[in-house]
Amino acid sequence: MCNNPKAAIILIGNEILSGKTQDQNMYWLGGRLNSLGIKLAEARVVPDIEKEIVNAVNECRKRYDYVFTSGGIGPTHDDITISAIAAAFNQKVIMNPEAERMLREYYPPEEQTEARMRMALTPEGASLIVNKISAAPGIRVENVWVLAGVPNIFKAMFEALAPQLTGGKPIKSLIVKLFTAESNIAQELAELQNKFTDIEIGSYPFKHQNRACTRLVLSGTDELQLSNAMDELVNIIKQMGFAYEPQEQEI
Amino acid sequence: MCNNPKAAIILIGNEILSGKTQDQNMYWLGGRLNSLGIKLAEARVVPDIEKEIVNAVNECRKRYDYVFTSGGIGPTHDDITISAIAAAFNQKVIMNPEAERMLREYYPPEEQTEARMRMALTPEGASLIVNKISAAPGIRVENVWVLAGVPNIFKAMFEALAPQLTGGKPIKSLIVKLFTAESNIAQELAELQNKFTDIEIGSYPFKHQNRACTRLVLSGTDELQLSNAMDELVNIIKQMGFAYEPQEQEI
Repeated sequence: MCNNPKAAIILIGNEILSGKTQDQNMYWLGGRLNSLGIKLAEARVVPDIEKEIVNAVNECRKRYDYVFTSGGIGPTHDDITISAIAAAFNQKVIMNPEAERMLREYYPPEEQTEARMRMALTPEGASLIVNKISAAPGIRVENVWVLAGVPNIFKAMFEALAPQLTGGKPIKSLIVKLFTAESNIAQELAELQNKFTDIEIGSYPFKHQNRACTRLVLSGTDELQLSNAMDELVNIIKQMGFAYEPQEQEI
Repeated sequence: MCNNPKAAIILIGNEILSGKTQDQNMYWLGGRLNSLGIKLAEARVVPDIEKEIVNAVNECRKRYDYVFTSGGIGPTHDDITISAIAAAFNQKVIMNPEAERMLREYYPPEEQTEARMRMALTPEGASLIVNKISAAPGIRVENVWVLAGVPNIFKAMFEALAPQLTGGKPIKSLIVKLFTAESNIAQELAELQNKFTDIEIGSYPFKHQNRACTRLVLSGTDELQLSNAMDELVNIIKQMGFAYEPQEQEI
């Protein structure tokens, strides 16, 4: 699993930091990347301030195989992602002929306003990510993929670019609900983790009928190891006499 | 608004990056801090890897007045936040006598297991954040406040520590729904933003009955300026003849 490519997402937008909008894109992307064998290794949320975006992009693009950004590519004054990406790569912003064509094809002539045509601006040398929903494209510069913030457009753009990503083996998970507090199995989990070093074992408390319970998540790319680790975990749980409930496999 | 204290939140946990758990704490904290006159200026999500936590904490604690972390303070092997915070501050991890007392008061003797008592470990010199829900305390080291990841415990710990924070004027918002695409008012919004430099004007597209609409959010600490900006915006909308709907004031 450690050898899988790694990605970061940068959510750009005051609306997320101010608690006005709940993130959906990071949440969705983490799971979607698992299925492609890419590990989401970091996420950041930055405000609509150019130097903050530039810093986050420049730090992340050096560290990760793929960087995805979400938000700030619309037609209004607070949409500054394109100029920030250009600044991060030291490039000029140009009117992109292909993006312009996409917008002119989509909007009737009377709706081809100046504000709207701003959405055809890209850093020089950027390639485009098709937007099947509302035409205005996303862009790619090197390993940075710039997507819209609106969740259904974010997803559509991601699916359009996904064939260009190179992943490893899909990251799969097995989950079991345990009807006792996590501290009651902490020692055994630590031993299991030491034994299965390629499997990631996560332990998450939750309440059920006002009782402390635990959700155990085993993740990895090797299905045989994953099922061996789960078999061993279930044996431990049975021996300890705790009630449990396996959940269906999730990718 | 620019003079208000600034905060960052660091969400610690593989479960958020893998798309298994949707964040609730960042979403809640952003709004809650607004009401205290503190601006959430950045958020990061990092995996359960000590050096990643250390880096994020050390970068953020230098840049922001307050840093809050969420997650990784339970009794299991994947709970490494305490040791990471100690490493970030170059401190030893000790059995904290006050935290130990809290746990021994809360749990009956037969439940005072070794795993559970691990939750009384803190960096040397940390102060404690009371946990009214499940006893195991959060901790504070300088400007870094370390909270549980479980949302109701996160909130309870935050309310316990909130009286120790120094905020500015509360950040308030006025919101209006506009039943046209944001590009149709982009130019006017840019001019309004240039006029009201202390008010933050955000424009967020959404769909209503399959039609492109826009949510406009005006935020600031000066209520008079805020209402002046909103009056002017409403006048612009009326003059342009767009349908709109003011929303109730939100903090």
